[in-house]
Amino acid sequence: MFYPPSLQALINEFLKLPGLGQKTAQRFIFHLLSRPKEDTLKLINALQNILNDINFCSLCHNITQKSPCHICSDIKRDKRILCIVSKPQDVPVIENTGEFHGLYHVLGGHIDPIDGTKGKNLSVDSLIQRIKKNNIQEVILAFNPDIEGETTSLYIFRLLKEFRIKISRLARGLPMGADLEYADDITLKNAIRGRREI
Amino acid sequence: MFYPPSLQALINEFLKLPGLGQKTAQRFIFHLLSRPKEDTLKLINALQNILNDINFCSLCHNITQKSPCHICSDIKRDKRILCIVSKPQDVPVIENTGEFHGLYHVLGGHIDPIDGTKGKNLSVDSLIQRIKKNNIQEVILAFNPDIEGETTSLYIFRLLKEFRIKISRLARGLPMGADLEYADDITLKNAIRGRREI
Repeated sequence: MFYPPSLQALINEFLKLPGLGQKTAQRFIFHLLSRPKEDTLKLINALQNILNDINFCSLCHNITQKSPCHICSDIKRDKRILCIVSKPQDVPVIENTGEFHGLYHVLGGHIDPIDGTKGKNLSVDSLIQRIKKNNIQEVILAFNPDIEGETTSLYIFRLLKEFRIKISRLARGLPMGADLEYADDITLKNAIRGRREI
Repeated sequence: MFYPPSLQALINEFLKLPGLGQKTAQRFIFHLLSRPKEDTLKLINALQNILNDINFCSLCHNITQKSPCHICSDIKRDKRILCIVSKPQDVPVIENTGEFHGLYHVLGGHIDPIDGTKGKNLSVDSLIQRIKKNNIQEVILAFNPDIEGETTSLYIFRLLKEFRIKISRLARGLPMGADLEYADDITLKNAIRGRREI
């Protein structure tokens, strides 16, 4: 496929983005070329801005423009309770529920379920420091209900056992709108085990 | 969903790309943030470069770094035969077959099959100029076999009839690897009508 070198170079850069294929990359580029140049300059500026502006919070490791982040520096949050998530993307999802008013700790990955090693940037040491120093009383493990999440939960649970704090994890059960007939075995098993009196 | 303003701004710019949704935009951005800054700078440079480098060929309206493009300025190409395509993306697809050695003309869109109007940047006038001036003897209409393509074919055919040149269009029939049992009626009808003696 012959394209001018600078166009091919941009295709190659786009291909490094997750899940983006050749055809979609081409579509993006021809879309950019069909727009006024100012629109592409806006995209370039926005990219430049996240490089300059976005950092990681020194306390919870969430992405933020200033450190500590707006959650860690919010005096109205309950500083005794910590919600541990795997990725920065998980924080706004939990924030959106309006159900949690404590602080977060972004682990930055998960434990490999095959060989049990931690990812290279896993913020485990700073988690232990926070628990030791800040009178944390409860930790909620909010990982995905999959093998990676389970392994990471178990790892963190073992690590924090000695601190004698309350450790919980998100409830398992039927999601809203589910149909019993089509629910999978494990979900139903979890729903029965976790049944609650009404 | 709370994100720092500069991150939200980049999400908004990504959302302007065709077929890109909120979740994919977030995934791209967190991927960019997880990489070394140099990698994102490469993407920024590549974007900047297509803004500076990519132009449209003054003759065939294909994208190019210098005008006239490498095809129009290639002395080995047969300048008497013109392949008319709708989009710049269609040129490398036809080039790839190695079957066509003439020049191209990129129309830049198609005729609206509902109201019969042309798109605003359709290079029809320059097509007629090229045919008048350059002793063109054959024109191949290479549009998609759909309503837009058929309408555009008909429009161009009527426009060029007076020049008494050979006008052809890409053959219709069974694609390689097709299964007769699952071929649709129109494809089969076209395959029968266009049957060739062996």
